[in-house]
Amino acid sequence: MKIDLENVKPMDIEKRSFEIITEELGDTPLVPGTELIVKRCIHTSADFDYAKNLCFSENVVEKAMQAIKEGACIVTDTQMAKSGINKRVLSRYGGEVYCFMSDEDVAAIAKENGCTRATACMDKALTMDKKLIFAIGNAPTALVRLYELIQDGKLSPELIIGVPVGFVNVVQSKELIMQTNVPYIVAKGRKGGSNIAACICNALLYMMDNDRG
Amino acid sequence: MKIDLENVKPMDIEKRSFEIITEELGDTPLVPGTELIVKRCIHTSADFDYAKNLCFSENVVEKAMQAIKEGACIVTDTQMAKSGINKRVLSRYGGEVYCFMSDEDVAAIAKENGCTRATACMDKALTMDKKLIFAIGNAPTALVRLYELIQDGKLSPELIIGVPVGFVNVVQSKELIMQTNVPYIVAKGRKGGSNIAACICNALLYMMDNDRG
Repeated sequence: MKIDLENVKPMDIEKRSFEIITEELGDTPLVPGTELIVKRCIHTSADFDYAKNLCFSENVVEKAMQAIKEGACIVTDTQMAKSGINKRVLSRYGGEVYCFMSDEDVAAIAKENGCTRATACMDKALTMDKKLIFAIGNAPTALVRLYELIQDGKLSPELIIGVPVGFVNVVQSKELIMQTNVPYIVAKGRKGGSNIAACICNALLYMMDNDRG
Repeated sequence: MKIDLENVKPMDIEKRSFEIITEELGDTPLVPGTELIVKRCIHTSADFDYAKNLCFSENVVEKAMQAIKEGACIVTDTQMAKSGINKRVLSRYGGEVYCFMSDEDVAAIAKENGCTRATACMDKALTMDKKLIFAIGNAPTALVRLYELIQDGKLSPELIIGVPVGFVNVVQSKELIMQTNVPYIVAKGRKGGSNIAACICNALLYMMDNDRG
């Protein structure tokens, strides 16, 4: 079988990909101002479900950008998401990315309390004296804990990117976050992942800054 | 709105997730011996398409396990995939994970040759004197280069996990790999990703070793 490769220069591959995505989306309705986030999620997953499942709280994009400009840090629930976020661009605004999942104190507290490490990570984040964005791509228990901390008035994040993936309490944990007054970007349903969490962070950063180097 | 959380202990979440996946797969036909790989990909993505798009060369699972037992190393095309692979379990067999994407020499060669960094990474892997498994979750150009190196008789990998995601030459690059005589696990079509690449590596490792700690 003869296989024909499309002749696209390395620097043009992403541009061409976004053209194809835009073309195939056709007139699918997207929330104005969120198009680049939705398209980047599709680019990351080749899954057009993200055109329908991504939910945005009011003016969340502006609020998120403002928080990043003010030096907000990102807390994630996986090393994979941390690895995927463009830390160089974030650092231009003074922000850093944190993941506490491999920390020994987190493992000890999780064991002691019979909770997940992701839950213990959220409690650890609470001790940080910084503006915080949470990018949760794996653990619904992290979202549940964030919800509790918000309801208790202990935490007031700048943004929650709520995109854990999976089958146990994933749908519910996202619904909880959408009931808070905290700005959110949530992938309704079961889908999401560390790649999607990182991708949404990067989409925001690239909307602010076209120079990614 | 009242939201009911399912009461599942942290240590039981994955088990419960796999039960739900098995239940929903019903009698979907899967290649015998590959079930745990397919289910883990669905677990990672909540996308049941992986029950249909994953393609396995003959006896690839046995061959992959044998290679890992013999100390094969894994080369990936993203730091995210590297970050997601269980390096502790792999190291029990003597293997390590490599990603050259951030290497300065790779960036320089890519610029000089007008190729992608992923292509240059595959050339760099060629200089390694080790049994190699390639886990490609992002760059179709990496798969195209692997195909060329295999056709030229310069490279003979133990396994290619060919799961780049995207819209430009992704479908074609996977078809090329499936035309070689190299053992492969490929997600036919556009879907895949660094998470899926890492997940397939981990599925193989966990099938060999139930103790992940």
